[in-house]
Amino acid sequence: MLKTAQQYVDSLRALKIRAYIDGERADGVVDHPLVAPHVNAVAKTYELAHVPEHREIMTATSHLTGETVHRYTHIFQGPDDLVKKIRMLRLLGQETGTCFQRCVGLDALNAVYAITFEIDRSEGSDYHQRFVRYLRDVQKRDLMLAGAMTDPKGHRARSPIEQTDPDQFVRVVERRPDGVVIRGAKLHNTGGINAHEVLVMPGTSLKPDEKDYAIACAVPADAEGVIFIFGRQSNDGRKFEGGCDIGNPRFGVVGGEAMVVFDDVFVPNERIFMAGETAFCGTLVNYFATWHRANYGGCKGGNADLLIGATAKMTRILGTDRNAVVRDKLVEMIHMNETTYASAVGASAMGYRLPCGSCMVDPMMANTVKQNITRNVYEIGRLSHDLAGGFLATMPGQKAFENPEIGQFVRKYHTANPEFDVMERVRIGRYIENVTSVTTMVEAMHGAGSPQAQRLAMMGLSAIDEKIRMLERVIDADDAVRDVC
Amino acid sequence: MLKTAQQYVDSLRALKIRAYIDGERADGVVDHPLVAPHVNAVAKTYELAHVPEHREIMTATSHLTGETVHRYTHIFQGPDDLVKKIRMLRLLGQETGTCFQRCVGLDALNAVYAITFEIDRSEGSDYHQRFVRYLRDVQKRDLMLAGAMTDPKGHRARSPIEQTDPDQFVRVVERRPDGVVIRGAKLHNTGGINAHEVLVMPGTSLKPDEKDYAIACAVPADAEGVIFIFGRQSNDGRKFEGGCDIGNPRFGVVGGEAMVVFDDVFVPNERIFMAGETAFCGTLVNYFATWHRANYGGCKGGNADLLIGATAKMTRILGTDRNAVVRDKLVEMIHMNETTYASAVGASAMGYRLPCGSCMVDPMMANTVKQNITRNVYEIGRLSHDLAGGFLATMPGQKAFENPEIGQFVRKYHTANPEFDVMERVRIGRYIENVTSVTTMVEAMHGAGSPQAQRLAMMGLSAIDEKIRMLERVIDADDAVRDVC
Amino acid sequence: MLKTAQQYVDSLRALKIRAYIDGERADGVVDHPLVAPHVNAVAKTYELAHVPEHREIMTATSHLTGETVHRYTHIFQGPDDLVKKIRMLRLLGQETGTCFQRCVGLDALNAVYAITFEIDRSEGSDYHQRFVRYLRDVQKRDLMLAGAMTDPKGHRARSPIEQTDPDQFVRVVERRPDGVVIRGAKLHNTGGINAHEVLVMPGTSLKPDEKDYAIACAVPADAEGVIFIFGRQSNDGRKFEGGCDIGNPRFGVVGGEAMVVFDDVFVPNERIFMAGETAFCGTLVNYFATWHRANYGGCKGGNADLLIGATAKMTRILGTDRNAVVRDKLVEMIHMNETTYASAVGASAMGYRLPCGSCMVDPMMANTVKQNITRNVYEIGRLSHDLAGGFLATMPGQKAFENPEIGQFVRKYHTANPEFDVMERVRIGRYIENVTSVTTMVEAMHGAGSPQAQRLAMMGLSAIDEKIRMLERVIDADDAVRDVC
Amino acid sequence: MLKTAQQYVDSLRALKIRAYIDGERADGVVDHPLVAPHVNAVAKTYELAHVPEHREIMTATSHLTGETVHRYTHIFQGPDDLVKKIRMLRLLGQETGTCFQRCVGLDALNAVYAITFEIDRSEGSDYHQRFVRYLRDVQKRDLMLAGAMTDPKGHRARSPIEQTDPDQFVRVVERRPDGVVIRGAKLHNTGGINAHEVLVMPGTSLKPDEKDYAIACAVPADAEGVIFIFGRQSNDGRKFEGGCDIGNPRFGVVGGEAMVVFDDVFVPNERIFMAGETAFCGTLVNYFATWHRANYGGCKGGNADLLIGATAKMTRILGTDRNAVVRDKLVEMIHMNETTYASAVGASAMGYRLPCGSCMVDPMMANTVKQNITRNVYEIGRLSHDLAGGFLATMPGQKAFENPEIGQFVRKYHTANPEFDVMERVRIGRYIENVTSVTTMVEAMHGAGSPQAQRLAMMGLSAIDEKIRMLERVIDADDAVRDVC
Repeated sequence: MLKTAQQYVDSLRALKIRAYIDGERADGVVDHPLVAPHVNAVAKTYELAHVPEHREIMTATSHLTGETVHRYTHIFQGPDDLVKKIRMLRLLGQETGTCFQRCVGLDALNAVYAITFEIDRSEGSDYHQRFVRYLRDVQKRDLMLAGAMTDPKGHRARSPIEQTDPDQFVRVVERRPDGVVIRGAKLHNTGGINAHEVLVMPGTSLKPDEKDYAIACAVPADAEGVIFIFGRQSNDGRKFEGGCDIGNPRFGVVGGEAMVVFDDVFVPNERIFMAGETAFCGTLVNYFATWHRANYGGCKGGNADLLIGATAKMTRILGTDRNAVVRDKLVEMIHMNETTYASAVGASAMGYRLPCGSCMVDPMMANTVKQNITRNVYEIGRLSHDLAGGFLATMPGQKAFENPEIGQFVRKYHTANPEFDVMERVRIGRYIENVTSVTTMVEAMHGAGSPQAQRLAMMGLSAIDEKIRMLERVIDADDAVRDVC
Repeated sequence: MLKTAQQYVDSLRALKIRAYIDGERADGVVDHPLVAPHVNAVAKTYELAHVPEHREIMTATSHLTGETVHRYTHIFQGPDDLVKKIRMLRLLGQETGTCFQRCVGLDALNAVYAITFEIDRSEGSDYHQRFVRYLRDVQKRDLMLAGAMTDPKGHRARSPIEQTDPDQFVRVVERRPDGVVIRGAKLHNTGGINAHEVLVMPGTSLKPDEKDYAIACAVPADAEGVIFIFGRQSNDGRKFEGGCDIGNPRFGVVGGEAMVVFDDVFVPNERIFMAGETAFCGTLVNYFATWHRANYGGCKGGNADLLIGATAKMTRILGTDRNAVVRDKLVEMIHMNETTYASAVGASAMGYRLPCGSCMVDPMMANTVKQNITRNVYEIGRLSHDLAGGFLATMPGQKAFENPEIGQFVRKYHTANPEFDVMERVRIGRYIENVTSVTTMVEAMHGAGSPQAQRLAMMGLSAIDEKIRMLERVIDADDAVRDVC
Repeated sequence: MLKTAQQYVDSLRALKIRAYIDGERADGVVDHPLVAPHVNAVAKTYELAHVPEHREIMTATSHLTGETVHRYTHIFQGPDDLVKKIRMLRLLGQETGTCFQRCVGLDALNAVYAITFEIDRSEGSDYHQRFVRYLRDVQKRDLMLAGAMTDPKGHRARSPIEQTDPDQFVRVVERRPDGVVIRGAKLHNTGGINAHEVLVMPGTSLKPDEKDYAIACAVPADAEGVIFIFGRQSNDGRKFEGGCDIGNPRFGVVGGEAMVVFDDVFVPNERIFMAGETAFCGTLVNYFATWHRANYGGCKGGNADLLIGATAKMTRILGTDRNAVVRDKLVEMIHMNETTYASAVGASAMGYRLPCGSCMVDPMMANTVKQNITRNVYEIGRLSHDLAGGFLATMPGQKAFENPEIGQFVRKYHTANPEFDVMERVRIGRYIENVTSVTTMVEAMHGAGSPQAQRLAMMGLSAIDEKIRMLERVIDADDAVRDVC
Repeated sequence: MLKTAQQYVDSLRALKIRAYIDGERADGVVDHPLVAPHVNAVAKTYELAHVPEHREIMTATSHLTGETVHRYTHIFQGPDDLVKKIRMLRLLGQETGTCFQRCVGLDALNAVYAITFEIDRSEGSDYHQRFVRYLRDVQKRDLMLAGAMTDPKGHRARSPIEQTDPDQFVRVVERRPDGVVIRGAKLHNTGGINAHEVLVMPGTSLKPDEKDYAIACAVPADAEGVIFIFGRQSNDGRKFEGGCDIGNPRFGVVGGEAMVVFDDVFVPNERIFMAGETAFCGTLVNYFATWHRANYGGCKGGNADLLIGATAKMTRILGTDRNAVVRDKLVEMIHMNETTYASAVGASAMGYRLPCGSCMVDPMMANTVKQNITRNVYEIGRLSHDLAGGFLATMPGQKAFENPEIGQFVRKYHTANPEFDVMERVRIGRYIENVTSVTTMVEAMHGAGSPQAQRLAMMGLSAIDEKIRMLERVIDADDAVRDVC
């Protein structure tokens, strides 16, 4: 029930998906230089589930079967599960320095699990049972799922049916007795190109007349009509070069985001978990986003641990590590990083029970986590640049270091504290450059919803009227210092 | 075992302490206009323990006796206790809009409980047993304790024995068979003047030759030689005026800090919990400070709820409440407030077991809470000023509103949205002015240690070397995109 | 033509205004403990004009008469005048540590000078000539003017004629052959109570049917029907106590703001400078506000110099002045302060000629100055609190230091570095407390318009379309690296 | 005397320099895809000097000859020249969206001009006359100069002679009657590879026994032993692809930084402007850095204008441009940008006369400019990412848009507001990605000195003692409200 890393990779190789990478049709994705690092990162999630010391946080006991499953296929049973998820994310972030991509699928599984229960309870449908069958299979086969929520959205001030192009949100274009045909695309799908399945969800709340857009379903990655188009990343070209200029050669940066196009894809009934229940779409999106927003305190925490380590090491290489102001800036990086981690743990510890019995993070706290991430990740990167020095911007590439004519010069003149090998400095410099690249930053900014999405959620959760009432209780007493008791 | 508010006040009236308020000897403190609001705030902690809906978080089961005790006298038994403490603080912050003062005593009880265990284990002494006896009494009588840690400190770059005046840190000046005599002062004692007892602790780590300064003991507030000198607060004079200009007439602002002078005070042996064990002072200070730093996410959270409520109400009175940017600023206030609350919960949920069996918050997380407080409280105040408007700075006082000649004008020209009574605006304006005063802000800045104290703690906890090792594991692989598995 | 400080004070004593201070009718304002410090601050502006080394920046040559006049009555003739104004403000800020109040009148004179020219040019009226006569008199008598712009405004989402109470903006209630009668109030008038004249201007742009509100005129402070009501300040009560607890005993904090009520005041024709020309009100407000916003880089710069000095001195008293992080925080205070000063100079240096021939600051730059002030003043205060220490919040008052029983203790235990007298620490602590009080902060926030007013101005000045065109010129070239030349 | 753009490019082609680009020896640099954009940016500086409307700010009158010269070869004669420089930088920043590289040479010319005067005055040498001859030639031939100041520096806590490798700072290794031989390298040389000459200066203050390191001289780019090694930039590989993925195809991003190695280069006497005068090195570095720091308010201001334009255009394409919070974020970008521009103008307007007669910017103000840049450029980039959306991180490349199989899908699903062509969105997205890349950010952080360099300068300029004296003058008066006059 727990795949090994090798089994994951083998199963991926066996899938014959239609994928375009770097603008061209790719026959296999696993070994493509642009994709392999992302596969390695996911493989690490499988690998660590078999490491005894990590088993407690990497695995869980299925509430369906009582068997041990990967935590990445588990339905959250309580605050303890949620806290362990955050701890797992920090560990994986430390082990890979990047995004390991399975969180979207995990939170999607949980969101669909919860919403199907609520739809059935209200509508008398049988989506939940259907989904539980699907979930059992996911747990049994330890699948990697790509959750797919973000529609292209077209004109942002218009709803799905107001768009000039009706396909700007994924929709049902045909209904058949045995299933439906869907059309559209989902963007920014983390790990999209190296997942076994795509779990499609609506990406926005919908009005009653937008039934065609209320579709949740599971689609095998190699289903007919499914097309994956891999996105570009900052400095992606360096992966073809090899060498330390890549930054994080083994695991890459960010999540290997892909757009997936549904070019009229047939989905059989047993894989449909919502079809027309517009009233539940807002809640589904909200469930998913809330869980997902808390995650960032974990994974980005682990990633930042490495960036802080890289920056601290760089100050030793430069010989600035004993300077009090330098140290204070490292503390600031740590402080910001631990703030979001602490909040994510807090959000998890205050988890509450949903109607289906699973456990939701505290929504206000989860939103603060992500909101802080949209700032702190930038500021941590900025401080790293401050301490690491200007050579991040001007350092020659690996080819120069290897060139027989100038290699001696670039090595000589990039040696700082001679106790450290010059290539350590270079490699760490490239690491910092690449993990603070625009692709990484923008993912931190917009993943799990843009900053404004969190702010709107917070406003909705703010209970302003209750705060006003509390104030009035305190001050609407007498206007004078009251006698005590 | 749970005092009522009235019993607390009565017991305070029965104490004959030597106190100076507003620079003059005060016969009784309870009804003094400068102190009464602080007594009211503490009384609220007693009152709520009797309210059924709050009993779960206001009380606890004593691990010593199995009986119900006030949470403010309880030894933290696990993360659940710590989380409940944070929730209690937020509730009390919402109910009073100010500091309710018992946290210092609570954390001091816990710190001395833990350190006496560790001293005894190492030194073979019997402080812990002695302290447990004391603690039973505190729980039984539901005492209000003032923890006293902060020494005057003299020249900050010098240790206790390097000071020109040896009394700049509380010290033992005489040893007798039945006890010791102490001299010195403790500053910034929250609730100092309206507590039953003062729990004295060393305020810094000490070197082996500073044994005289390693003194922890409990002193009754009315012991011979104990002098309380009440500090000034911003706008304290308004409490003599009465009226809405006070801001928070019933509960005041901040914690009624007092300095306590030990003018050669005798402490009998059974009340001494450390005397000379310098090696344990750093840990004691650290235990206390770490618990205490997490608290600020609770109490300041509750206080900020009222400030946010006040600000939101003001925007309704002004008619600006529908403006999107105004609403966004309210969200920012909420976001900052919930960030520290979430972190405090996180720090609590990650609590770990100390040698004595009680539970310590996660130290890194606790320090982030307080560090954020030293910024967020200011920024929340700033945004409140932004939204509440310039009249905070120029509004005439209550006497003007009541003056028969000009009352009509000040009322007329301070009426904003006529749906609201002008005095609502005035009262809330004064509330905002006073809860964002310098006294309040500085307490948020320096309570539980200055910002730099938290940063030094974070640096100590940062595990930089481990972060560097984790980085090296990730990048010291091959310099190329590795083959997957 | 240049009054001495004594002449200013004498002329003020000779004025019999109707004033209410502390909610009560005051016979004379000059020597009232709540007002005297503000009079002292204005007196300093008169005094320094006679000091040879300051003459260049404190005085100017009248473009009307060629004679030397006080810069505070001068029409800005070019960028050099504007830069000198900023330098004068910084000097005065350093000499008083507070607001010296004459800027509002100065900028009002300039605004009315400019707008009357433009009205006449467009409407064929003769306001400008009338105003020049008035201005000559102001220059000749070296008058202190209170500019009065801010109306009460009632419901903020409603225009003047939409208000329930039509008097929420100053308006003409009667027109006579020889003048008009005005009714209403102006709020937040800096130096209002110790000025010779009130220069009334509309406070908002107006629509054509709001003619009654388009009134600009000069009113003697002792005119029939004019009532001054002095506002409260944080810690104002301490001025009655005397002693160092006041903070800045000689000059006070902020500008002695007063509301002025026009209880049906008759204004003769020669003192009317606009009456009904609604189309020009927006520009008038804009002119005034733009000049005024740049000022804050000067006066707050001077004030912050003293606060930085106070904080630096405190670190020496505490013995923390050699700590690198402490020093870095002082640098941050300086950096923020010099940023706004530099911007104010920049705004002045880029001044451009108005139709009337006088010189307007660069509007975008002027708005950035004020916008930064609304943040930096708070942050500078916060850092001051950080470095000055917790005793700001808890220090006993002067009476305690003088008390025969406890004076010895409070002195002993507030002595830090024994090289400094304890009262130096106390006095500086009180200074910091009072110059960072809510009244001061809110003045920095809302004076010359709320933060959002500056942002709306910036949006209007932003030339976004031009920025887009510039971008398109750069990128709408070929999509490839172009051959060079 | 004013080269055309074509003449600049031709003269560059005629130079036979030894250059390594992308780790390989390059025969010509002008047309190399990695360099051509930077050449284009410099060419623009030559081009605009011939455009009548820009002549006033692009050219100046030589104080040596009275002839019209390019402002980029001009010695600053007064504040007006300095302000015009800042305006020129903003214009060029708007015209290119990148660094145009000639500022380093300009400020180096001015710094060496000033310091040679001061050395001669003190030492009786004749460097200044020698330099003036050189300068006349530079002006006459309108040369592009690369100022070279930053040494590799080795171990940062060690001075030049303390280094293990004595070549970590450029030094004289041989003295001959007709000149000297220098060895070492200079890093981060903006425009280094496409300049006519390299103007070498010491990069740090030196001690008396470090005479060999006190060398300033001019070296032709094609001198024997000079080797240029071009640095990598984020996304540099895309320049080989062509297409809109480059971001700013015509002008590139940042300044085409190169390291220059002096592999025992002979410099004849007439090109030596300092050789051994260690006492003047600190001042030289300081002069250069101070002028240079003010520049960033100009060039980055122009660059940010385009980024703000790009972001604003993107909000129109997305359909979010009417949202109040979106607009407020644009205002914030503008506000930060105009703050640094205003400060740079202020620093220039307050310029003062150096001993040699030229004009130095106000040092404190200049340092605030650069210090703010190290923050604001990041925050402006962050807000741009916020508003531009997540597709910055995941958008497929140009090849995907052109691919016959998937081009239709990527175009369809990246179309937002259908009024705009999808390729507009893509091109602007790539522009934002590339101008906010790490290379750009780090240049803003470290160019003209790291943040801490500015802070140390500010501390040195802070006049803390004077601030303390000013404070004491204000508060050391009586402790009471003083009688007025």
